[in-house]
Amino acid sequence: MPVYEDPIGGLRLDAGALLRWTTLLVQRLGAPDDIAADVAELLIASDLRGIASHGTARLPQYVKLAEAGVMDPAARPRLEGGKPALSLFDAQNGFGHHAGRVAIDHAIERASEIGAAIAVVRNSNHYGIAGWYAMRAASAGMIGMSLTNTSPLVAPTRARVSMLGTNPIAVAAPAGKYEMLVLDMATSTIPRGRIEVAARRGEALPIGWAIGPDGSPATTPEQALSGSLQPLGGEESTAGYKGYGLSLIVELFTGILAGAAFGPNIIGLFSTAGKSDLGQFYMAVDPGAIGQAGAFVSRLEQLLDQLLHAPLIPDAPGPVLYPGQPEAERARRQQREGIVIDREHYESLLSLAERFGIPLPDAL
Amino acid sequence: MPVYEDPIGGLRLDAGALLRWTTLLVQRLGAPDDIAADVAELLIASDLRGIASHGTARLPQYVKLAEAGVMDPAARPRLEGGKPALSLFDAQNGFGHHAGRVAIDHAIERASEIGAAIAVVRNSNHYGIAGWYAMRAASAGMIGMSLTNTSPLVAPTRARVSMLGTNPIAVAAPAGKYEMLVLDMATSTIPRGRIEVAARRGEALPIGWAIGPDGSPATTPEQALSGSLQPLGGEESTAGYKGYGLSLIVELFTGILAGAAFGPNIIGLFSTAGKSDLGQFYMAVDPGAIGQAGAFVSRLEQLLDQLLHAPLIPDAPGPVLYPGQPEAERARRQQREGIVIDREHYESLLSLAERFGIPLPDAL
Repeated sequence: MPVYEDPIGGLRLDAGALLRWTTLLVQRLGAPDDIAADVAELLIASDLRGIASHGTARLPQYVKLAEAGVMDPAARPRLEGGKPALSLFDAQNGFGHHAGRVAIDHAIERASEIGAAIAVVRNSNHYGIAGWYAMRAASAGMIGMSLTNTSPLVAPTRARVSMLGTNPIAVAAPAGKYEMLVLDMATSTIPRGRIEVAARRGEALPIGWAIGPDGSPATTPEQALSGSLQPLGGEESTAGYKGYGLSLIVELFTGILAGAAFGPNIIGLFSTAGKSDLGQFYMAVDPGAIGQAGAFVSRLEQLLDQLLHAPLIPDAPGPVLYPGQPEAERARRQQREGIVIDREHYESLLSLAERFGIPLPDAL
Repeated sequence: MPVYEDPIGGLRLDAGALLRWTTLLVQRLGAPDDIAADVAELLIASDLRGIASHGTARLPQYVKLAEAGVMDPAARPRLEGGKPALSLFDAQNGFGHHAGRVAIDHAIERASEIGAAIAVVRNSNHYGIAGWYAMRAASAGMIGMSLTNTSPLVAPTRARVSMLGTNPIAVAAPAGKYEMLVLDMATSTIPRGRIEVAARRGEALPIGWAIGPDGSPATTPEQALSGSLQPLGGEESTAGYKGYGLSLIVELFTGILAGAAFGPNIIGLFSTAGKSDLGQFYMAVDPGAIGQAGAFVSRLEQLLDQLLHAPLIPDAPGPVLYPGQPEAERARRQQREGIVIDREHYESLLSLAERFGIPLPDAL
């Protein structure tokens, strides 16, 4: 998957035009208008934020899953049961993006009545960036949280094989003049895509990113790509067991709680060998319920003020950042100037455009 | 603070006897019986699990805070308001342990009615091990979670100074034949106590544990002790910004949400210069609310089975572990054979015993 720090043969596409094109394409796969709108919205939001691995670059894979009949583009999530603060949805093997939008909206609505609410989803698929769902709650003035389990790519501390996903944790909150705090992080040290970039750049790998197939630290991208990612913290001596623990906790709140597949039992998210059956978790917490709506935002603003003005270490590449700051800056710029995608990504979209007879917007 | 991997001049005390002694001592500080019982229960649970830094070794500091009048041993938490799934308590500057026990019990009771519930606490103090509160919910068949902010000891990525706490994340769940999964981790790479141990052992420090006062990586315990801890992940190149993000999220759910002190504005937890005003977060989630009570436990058991039997890396010091496993094993052993404490810790208790006229139990 492309990572756009250094796009090769980069082209720019207008965000609005790409959104309309993506919507049409997803409709053509059999998705009703509202479902296609959710999927397109998520994919473009990801591209805007520079997270190419979760944006329109995934479309060829979604097409493959739909055509193989292992994902149902028209399926709607069904509320299976629960109590006011905890609901269970069955995504019925539809697009994870749509099930997620429905589930976080459900949690936001409940939280506005009772202060906080959780919705978990089973039988789901890839849902794009975890941060989007958390941001949706933050836009409603709440703290939002989203978790998902994923393909097993990470080796638990001491293990030689991949058994857990990069299982992301996303939390967002309204932050006044800073707009929004958005933490959206895999619980591995780095995503697999970063190793592919290192391969392209001919970089050696730092200790703590990955292990090779024999379980030793991977020092080359080749070793890493045939081995496993390491959990956040890396080696046991630098507390990699904490990242392993976090990944396991994400599994607990998703696959284990929702009754989906889990851990090493998840087949690849983009495998056509069978359905993904992912588990996802959504939570909304309303500071207004405890009389803290405005005060919450002021305090967060004050904390970010303090962090952003901290004195720096000698070799700092820039000031202290807050989570989501670089992504928000890129999204604003790309909304204005167009979304940069690399040549390979562009050509994959072009090929879908030709196949489905939906002309791709011209590059800017 | 002592860490009991290598106690110096270790002695063993009977757990039950130490619990009774601690209860009497806390009562003598002015705590009513039920409050003293909560504090003692928490401290002994910590000692049993081998987390000496959060057990009875803290008693001299609690005595100092009570005697200086900056903490009120008799104070009871007051429910300030909220809605069914989100409540706010004011701990009224009492023992954090008691406020926490009341708050997690409140969340468990609410969760049993509506599926999930959160309680946040402001104006609180040090509350011992975060894991205890999560375990209380797990004992009730639920997923439990607890977070607290703490003294600023951690430098955000790129910053030269300490601005955030070691802000722990604790999550626990019932795990059938494995009894309980308990993740209880600081969001720094290591706790400050581990650096004190390195100083005692004359060890050099790995990159990623701490920075010195000039912001460069600390290679000696001396540099680290006059500098700052690093967030989980360590340097920016090994994703230390993720640990920084997690620490900030803990701050968001505690100090910022509850309306307590936060980040660099927290005075030291054991400082007599003023009250701590900590913020704490408690959540209980009931799998039974979505019809998953038994199935949840079976799935978790199956996942732990798979993890614990994973093939190992070449230099693994033992099999894959699950979070909380070593602590649970130690607790069972120490419940039977007595709690091992080091000479310095023992003498600090002896001195309290003499001062308050409450004879310390004999060493075994």
